[in-house]
Formats: sequence, C-alpha cells, structure tokens
Amino acid sequence: MTDTPILLTPGPLTISMRTKQSMLRDWGSWDADFNRITGRVRERLLDIVHARDTHECVPLQGSGTFSVEAAIGTLVPRSGHVLVPQNGAYCQRIARICRVLGRAHTTIDYPEDAAVSAADVDRALAANPAITHVALVHCETSAGILNPLAAVAEVVARHGRGLIVDAMSSFGALEIDARTMRFDAVIAASGKCLEGPPGMGFVIVRREVLEKAEGNSHSLAMDLYDQWVYMKKTTQWRFTPPTHVVAAFDAAIEQFLEEGGRQARGARYAANCRQLIEGMAGLGLKSFLPAAIQAPIIVTFHAPPTPGYEFKAFYNAVKARGYILYPGKLTTLETFRVGCMGQMGERGILGAVDAVRQVLAALNAAA
Amino acid sequence: MTDTPILLTPGPLTISMRTKQSMLRDWGSWDADFNRITGRVRERLLDIVHARDTHECVPLQGSGTFSVEAAIGTLVPRSGHVLVPQNGAYCQRIARICRVLGRAHTTIDYPEDAAVSAADVDRALAANPAITHVALVHCETSAGILNPLAAVAEVVARHGRGLIVDAMSSFGALEIDARTMRFDAVIAASGKCLEGPPGMGFVIVRREVLEKAEGNSHSLAMDLYDQWVYMKKTTQWRFTPPTHVVAAFDAAIEQFLEEGGRQARGARYAANCRQLIEGMAGLGLKSFLPAAIQAPIIVTFHAPPTPGYEFKAFYNAVKARGYILYPGKLTTLETFRVGCMGQMGERGILGAVDAVRQVLAALNAAA
Repeated sequence: MTDTPILLTPGPLTISMRTKQSMLRDWGSWDADFNRITGRVRERLLDIVHARDTHECVPLQGSGTFSVEAAIGTLVPRSGHVLVPQNGAYCQRIARICRVLGRAHTTIDYPEDAAVSAADVDRALAANPAITHVALVHCETSAGILNPLAAVAEVVARHGRGLIVDAMSSFGALEIDARTMRFDAVIAASGKCLEGPPGMGFVIVRREVLEKAEGNSHSLAMDLYDQWVYMKKTTQWRFTPPTHVVAAFDAAIEQFLEEGGRQARGARYAANCRQLIEGMAGLGLKSFLPAAIQAPIIVTFHAPPTPGYEFKAFYNAVKARGYILYPGKLTTLETFRVGCMGQMGERGILGAVDAVRQVLAALNAAA
Repeated sequence: MTDTPILLTPGPLTISMRTKQSMLRDWGSWDADFNRITGRVRERLLDIVHARDTHECVPLQGSGTFSVEAAIGTLVPRSGHVLVPQNGAYCQRIARICRVLGRAHTTIDYPEDAAVSAADVDRALAANPAITHVALVHCETSAGILNPLAAVAEVVARHGRGLIVDAMSSFGALEIDARTMRFDAVIAASGKCLEGPPGMGFVIVRREVLEKAEGNSHSLAMDLYDQWVYMKKTTQWRFTPPTHVVAAFDAAIEQFLEEGGRQARGARYAANCRQLIEGMAGLGLKSFLPAAIQAPIIVTFHAPPTPGYEFKAFYNAVKARGYILYPGKLTTLETFRVGCMGQMGERGILGAVDAVRQVLAALNAAA
C-alpha cells in the first residue's frame, strides 16, 4: 500500500493505517460492544467543542451534506426563515437545501475572496425580524476562507436567533467552544479533520432545541429528533449504521486525543499550511487569499503561468509522483487547491511541494 | 481477529477478510481510479438483475432505508398514491416514509406469518384507480417471509402501475430478472446478500421513469434524479462517497462473481437455511413460518421452552461461543432469529447450531 498517493484534498483524506486496520473486524449493529463504540464517539465529539452540558451529539449515516440537510430540516421549523451569508459553493448548497426543503431563506452575497462580515449579519437581522436562523459555513473550502464564527455567533445570540454552523472542514482543528459561543447546531463528518474514513456525519445540537424539534423534519431517514430519541432509548442507531466506518472513526478520535486534541491537530495543519504557502511561493506559485482570511485547511493557488498548463495533465503528473491535488472551484479564475489535512507521510507537506517543483520543471523544459 | 463472533443477523453480516482488507487504502473521491470502481459496481449491479438495457443503477450514501426513502421520494410524484401490502416492520417503514413525505398511500394488512397475495393486490388496484405505485418488500425479514415478487409484478404490470421493490435482503441471492419481471425500481444495499460492509445503498431504476423524475424529490441529498444526472456527467458521486465502503463493495461483488453469482449465492444460503432449520429441530427448536413462505435469508424460531429462558442471557451465552444471534421482531410471540447470510467460518451454520445446543444444555442443567 506504500504506493498509494497521498490525498491533498478536503476529504476524503489520507488516514492512518491504524485507523484503516480497525475496519478489519465486523460488528453486529444490535450488539452492546458496538453500541459502546457509538456512545464513546458521541461523548468525545461533544467534548471536542466543550458541549457535554448543553448539547447532544446525533450521528447520521451518509456524507456530511446529509447531516447539513438533516440539521436544516430538523431544527428549522417549516415556518422558519434562514439567513445564509454566501461566499462559496458550500454556502450556496445550504441555500439550495433550504429551497428544496421549502424553508424561506435570504442570502448575503460576497465575492469568492471575502470573508463573511458579522456587521452585515447584524444589519440583516435587525432589518428582518422574520429571520429565525443564521446558517454559517465556518471554513468555506471553495476558496479556503475562514469565516468569523465567534463574531457571527455573538451577533446571532444578541438578536436571539438560532445559529447553525457547517463546521465540516474545521471541526477538530479550529476552535469551536460551546461555553463561549452560542450555537443551536454544529455539523461535521467523520472523514475530515478528525481523520476518519468518510461515511457518517454528526450534528452537535443544543439540547433544548432538539427537544422541541419533533415533527419538523421533511424526511424519515434524516430526522435527527427521531434518531436521537431512538438512540437515547436503545443505544442503537435507528437504521443500519456503517459499522466499519464508525469503528474506524472511534479509532481516529482515539489517535486525535493521543496527538493532543484540537490544539495539536490545529497546530499541525497550520504548520502544513505555512510550509505549503511558503514552499509554493518559492516555486513562483501564488496563493489566492489574503493571509488574514486563509483557513489552515485547504489553500487555493493560481494556476502556474507555465505555457501550455492544463490542470488535468498537471494533476496526473503530480499524482504519478505520489500526491493527489484538488481542482479549483472559483468561477472566473484558473486555480487548483491543495489540502493541509490528513496523514502526509514521512516527507510531510514538503514532499508535495517537491513533487509540484518536479512537475513544473518538466513542464517548463517542455515549453 | 479470529475471536470475533460470526454475525447471524440480517446485515451487517460477517464479510470475508479479503473484502475487509480492501479497505486498507484511501481513495480520492475526485480521482479517476476511484470513479472507475463506482462505474464497475453500478454496471455489475445492473447485470445481477439483467437490467443493463432497461434500467440505471443509482448508488446512494447511507443505510438501505435511505435508498428506500430516496426511491419513494424521487419516483413517486407528489400527487402519487402508493399501495403497500404489509406483513412486517419493513413494509410498515415504507408506509411511514410515505406519511412523512406526504405521499398518499393505502395498505393491505396481513398477519406476521402470511405472505402477500398477488390476488389481493390485483383487487386493490382494480378497486382504486388512484393508486399509481405498489411498494413490495421482497423478503420481509421481520419474520423471514418470502413475498411473491413475480406474481405481484405480473399483476402490477397488467394494471399499468409502477412497482417499487425493497429487495434489501434478497438482492443477489434470490432471483430478480428485469427481462421477465417489470419493475420501476429495485432497492438494496451493500451490507446484505452481496456481503459488503454497510454504508451505501443503491436503486435500480427503469430508465424512462428516472428520466421523468426531475423535481419530485423532497430532499437534496436523497434526490436520485440529481445524483444520476451528476454521475452521468462527471462519473463522480455528488457528495462525498464512503470511499472505503465502495471499494470493499466492489471487492465483495468480485467474490460474488467468482463464487458463481446469484445462483451459487442463493444455493449456499438455501443450504444454510435447511441445515439450520433441521439442526435446530433436532434441539427441539421450532421455526415459526411454514416452509412454503420461508425465505432462505433469516429464520424466526420460537423461544426454547426451557424454564427461565430469557433472550438476553441466551444471546450472551451463544455470543460467548462465537455467534451473534438476532432478537425476534414479532409482536405477540417470544422468538429469536438466526440469519443464513454471510461468511459462516470453517464450521458453517452447524457451528452455530452446536453453540445453541451447548447453551440449551447448560440452561437445562441449571433449571
């Protein structure tokens, strides 16, 4: 397996062999041994955001987007109205979910290189008392922007509205603290900064909000209230859980804690991000965002000025050298992205920079 | 890992070590190597039911129930009306999905030990022209009943209505043939008779039905039309797939084909079922269903007449001997269930019978 390329993507990412090896066992989804794993995962996820006293952790089968839709559907009443500050594809996806689910919503639109402004949210909430919830993407991986969660949370709390945070690409690496930030829900998934395999998401929901959420959901499978009530009663998942993924996620969280938890994980990704941006700058490759709003999760780079550059060929050449890049997602600029998350192998992120260097040299020689 | 109990449950079940070892690698969900796996899985699933000319395979993240809900939501128009013949918990779940999704539905109710009757479906369709679809559970694992799919399909086709088949516990083991049975959709999941890990489902949908399904879905994540269109365009899943599960499912299907496909798989389970019922009868344990409607998937047994019998203690004692049983699901009778699916280990299903024999002997000695 040593020739498997390292994934520099925003998830799935390269996870440790120890985590993968924990999938070499089958579990009965009704069995107490398995349900103890589910219970431990749920408690530890609450602890990561210091929410055990105030919130419940409701896991859900499927990708992270399933959990985002489940949170909107379960926690926003059918008469609710969601404010969505938008600076990328994942914000747009939340607006699309609101449309499909028939939840009224209003957007605040930003360019792809600007962070959400808490002052704008403040004005929007003051102007429109019909808004019941704000849905914020913490780290918008379209460009890699860090949105100001603490400031937005303060504004939303002051207006007495509910805050739903898509923390897909930040949970476990960037600080989220339920003791100091008021939120109704924080959503993430197994295959991101906690470095498990993809296949399940989870929502950290304020207990008093969840208790009142019966009957809101548009869906049976994605009804977080129903999932929670059943799990509380039986310790089991309502419908078949992805047992191998859950066991591996548990192993990944164990390693996260051994590493030193959120601060150590965040520091490792931040170091990756710094080394990456500096290393690529040394190759003449400029990152797209201003440093002040660059999250240490994924970095957008302008395409190399090399004549004849074409992403697919560049991608394949870097992949042949052991690293899988990610395409850009900006609408007007030619870019590519490099993730700072996951297990980077012995050579770390500098191995990736070196692979890019070799490929650019070959491209330049050919040009 | 040799001390891991064998799962005698209707899924998750014990899968081969080769299948589990295929999860020891990370895949980029954007990468062509991974998307080739997705494409191969989809084609082979179509081939298992001889549907490549007429149907499309749409995979979906989550448990099998997610795919059932997705099929109802995507394929039954909001003005549709679903007939649900009911003889167990999985039929009831379909009716519940219809309620939550706001799809009109009518049930035909059977006792827990009776198969659905095609003649009843015929009468119900004749009596109510508003019914647009019939939703049938092929193998109702609540008691283990095999419902008469071919006969129901013939009736539904004759009335020109749509047939949606929950084939969760039969796909790959019992015959379903798109060339001779007309159906709009057949739904199953990775962790059942094809012996993959749980974590994804799939729906085999008649192409002309899928083409007209835009805008039906109540959900973004569970919109099979949207998933299909995106996958056709990009070869990728819309939202992060459970990459390890998909790769393992592919490996499981490879082994399914090596074993001899549907007929060999069905024959193995049928042999397990026969040996199990005979072996347990030898211990004085009677199976619940008449042989004519017993599917070779999971068998319900009456609780032992042993004084002081209690399922939980019985379960734990059998588990200590290496086998995980499944609780009964009948509403009025004390029962337990034993699955005939999955990798049974060297001693086969007779090892399980022997474990039950030992436990009953100990219980009787203690009584």
